[in-house]
Amino acid sequence: MPSISQRGQDMPASPIRKLVPYAEAAKKRGVRVFHLNIGQPDIETPPSTLEAVRHFDFKVLEYSHSAGNESYRRKLVSYYAKKKIDISYEQIIITTGGSEAILFAMLSCMDSGDEVIVPEPFYANYNGFATEAGVQVVPVTSFIENGFALPSTEAFEKAITAKTKAVLICNPNNPTGYLYSHQELNTLRQLVKKRGLYLFSDEAYREFCYEGEHFSAMQLEGLGENVVLLDTISKRYSACGGRIGALITRNQQVLDAVMKFAQARLSPPSFSQILGEAAVDLPDDYFDTTKEEYRKRRNALVERLNRIEGVFCPTPGGAFYAIARLPVPNAEHFCQWLLESFTYQGQTLMLAPAAGFYGTKGLGKSEVRLAYVLNVDSIHRAMDCLKAALDEYPHSLNYKKVQTITYK
Amino acid sequence: MPSISQRGQDMPASPIRKLVPYAEAAKKRGVRVFHLNIGQPDIETPPSTLEAVRHFDFKVLEYSHSAGNESYRRKLVSYYAKKKIDISYEQIIITTGGSEAILFAMLSCMDSGDEVIVPEPFYANYNGFATEAGVQVVPVTSFIENGFALPSTEAFEKAITAKTKAVLICNPNNPTGYLYSHQELNTLRQLVKKRGLYLFSDEAYREFCYEGEHFSAMQLEGLGENVVLLDTISKRYSACGGRIGALITRNQQVLDAVMKFAQARLSPPSFSQILGEAAVDLPDDYFDTTKEEYRKRRNALVERLNRIEGVFCPTPGGAFYAIARLPVPNAEHFCQWLLESFTYQGQTLMLAPAAGFYGTKGLGKSEVRLAYVLNVDSIHRAMDCLKAALDEYPHSLNYKKVQTITYK
Repeated sequence: MPSISQRGQDMPASPIRKLVPYAEAAKKRGVRVFHLNIGQPDIETPPSTLEAVRHFDFKVLEYSHSAGNESYRRKLVSYYAKKKIDISYEQIIITTGGSEAILFAMLSCMDSGDEVIVPEPFYANYNGFATEAGVQVVPVTSFIENGFALPSTEAFEKAITAKTKAVLICNPNNPTGYLYSHQELNTLRQLVKKRGLYLFSDEAYREFCYEGEHFSAMQLEGLGENVVLLDTISKRYSACGGRIGALITRNQQVLDAVMKFAQARLSPPSFSQILGEAAVDLPDDYFDTTKEEYRKRRNALVERLNRIEGVFCPTPGGAFYAIARLPVPNAEHFCQWLLESFTYQGQTLMLAPAAGFYGTKGLGKSEVRLAYVLNVDSIHRAMDCLKAALDEYPHSLNYKKVQTITYK
Repeated sequence: MPSISQRGQDMPASPIRKLVPYAEAAKKRGVRVFHLNIGQPDIETPPSTLEAVRHFDFKVLEYSHSAGNESYRRKLVSYYAKKKIDISYEQIIITTGGSEAILFAMLSCMDSGDEVIVPEPFYANYNGFATEAGVQVVPVTSFIENGFALPSTEAFEKAITAKTKAVLICNPNNPTGYLYSHQELNTLRQLVKKRGLYLFSDEAYREFCYEGEHFSAMQLEGLGENVVLLDTISKRYSACGGRIGALITRNQQVLDAVMKFAQARLSPPSFSQILGEAAVDLPDDYFDTTKEEYRKRRNALVERLNRIEGVFCPTPGGAFYAIARLPVPNAEHFCQWLLESFTYQGQTLMLAPAAGFYGTKGLGKSEVRLAYVLNVDSIHRAMDCLKAALDEYPHSLNYKKVQTITYK
């Protein structure tokens, strides 16, 4: 019998999905589970964009252009212009989700054995795409004490080797919610410029910034050859199942290479390109309501978390995630226990253990990621559960609430 | 400035798209171009399946299950049962087009440096996916003289090395249209069983067989661990832009590995899964009309080709492609000349030079692939053009029509 490949074995399983069977079993027992574990927004997909899909007018569902429909790419130029990102439609390649944009960036810019530096904790699927592309993820640690700010230049410099080809950031960040400042991006600008590296910037959550404005890596001056923007409509328009993303760069060689990967897989999905194109026509204030809703949720979540003895959660500036440190020695065990052995008024909650978001083994063991994709009322009830659970959990520690900020 | 990767440089450009600018220029000059170069069917996507998409009933376009919607997978079981392919829904993973199924098979079963044996000429994008996965395509030549029948066991045995992990076939074949017989598949069965190899079977054109029935690699006995079926709805239902395919295997280890790749990219596109699911409900005689139409086109095309002095085209048993040998020393030059310098009654035709479908350099230089995706009338007019072009082309050779079949 032929064996599967080493990379098939190395390919990491989702750190979140391990707990799914326990959640399913809890539901079968009649327990209500508050899902704070996944990034599937509960916000409605804009009805006008769904209507646009309903009104498609072709009779043959043909391949689109490998770079995506030209009409869509031309429209996207105006979306990005509003975000002060100045690009032409030829610099946009529509991808099958942000996922494919990440993979194409790695395949086009990096060879097997090359290294990409990523501040940890980071989006766990970066590991998966890196395994597919045979590249090494080199983590540089960010810390909960300062809200997961960008690690110092010294820390990045220490991580750079002859094999380093790129730095990958997610801004605002999944899983920390941290929003990188203009100043932090300028620090990165100097670093990648000096060391001749690519800067891959995953801006999936661009529209979800609660204080201050988002500053894109594409706005950095003099980095035309270095920056590759990885984007998606999944979170922006609550359109995860559409599988529409984009890879954007001013580097013509990268565009040419990415196009060859795009042509091999023929085209991105047609129906959801219609949705993406229609979304560009949403009124300018479309995000106001959504952002206000998320801001309320964030505030409720963070306030409630920090009121629980021994829990610390820095206030995230963007996205819809927060990382909290719990007074437990092993958050994975705690999360499983929540689903297996605990209920409070017939309810429990599902959290994502944060260790799976760290590249360095042993880090984040007491941390969890919470996605505030539930309404404020559900968040309050979930926090009631969490408080009760930490009281009842046999392994809870008498942590002192972290008050002092320590930088490394 | 950072450089692109070696694999970004190695990634092959589409052998067909090179000619696209010439076709566009011809159209701008007012020339009508008959496109026999691409596999985009002109058959309407079944209206009932498009209607199903129009009637989606969700308000949030969520991620689907990474393996695809369970309802769709359960329904597909009945589709495959009708094709005498006995599988359970857990053995089906829905992919983003057949393209992703091919890539996932390579990533899960093969490591960088491993070799996959493919009868040539073959679907050119196999080279692309192989480059992405870092694996080597090892061609075993099939010959126009016997209609591109399966190469001999000896030829396969000669190609096997310690690095060989799989044999990849496309049945019926793109680009040759050859339909492998039950006996030929049994030969492959013995080979992969004896040598412990995977058999990747791309059956994108399963429904388009004009003589006799399609025999699937999944029907081979005792090969449960070896066979990976690569499938797509693109051609079956003229739904290329849907980007829905499937990877199917009875090998649980392969399924587990593929699932990890599937989870990393989250989910296949949602809208087109609705289309795929609705397509399973099409009446059993749905393909009769389409097949009859393609059969007529094939017969017209092959007959007209073989009536031209110096042209030889074996009759393909399936798919909607044929390969013809033309009395020209360099088909690529001829194809470009057709678009750049030739018209017949204001018309010309676009063909795909076949050299790009061969892995062995120098083969197929006088051959072209023709996709019969135009109606019979257009095919006749295209053949009128071709005949006139071969008369006029300054480099036409006085080839003797190939009459004798020579086996190597």
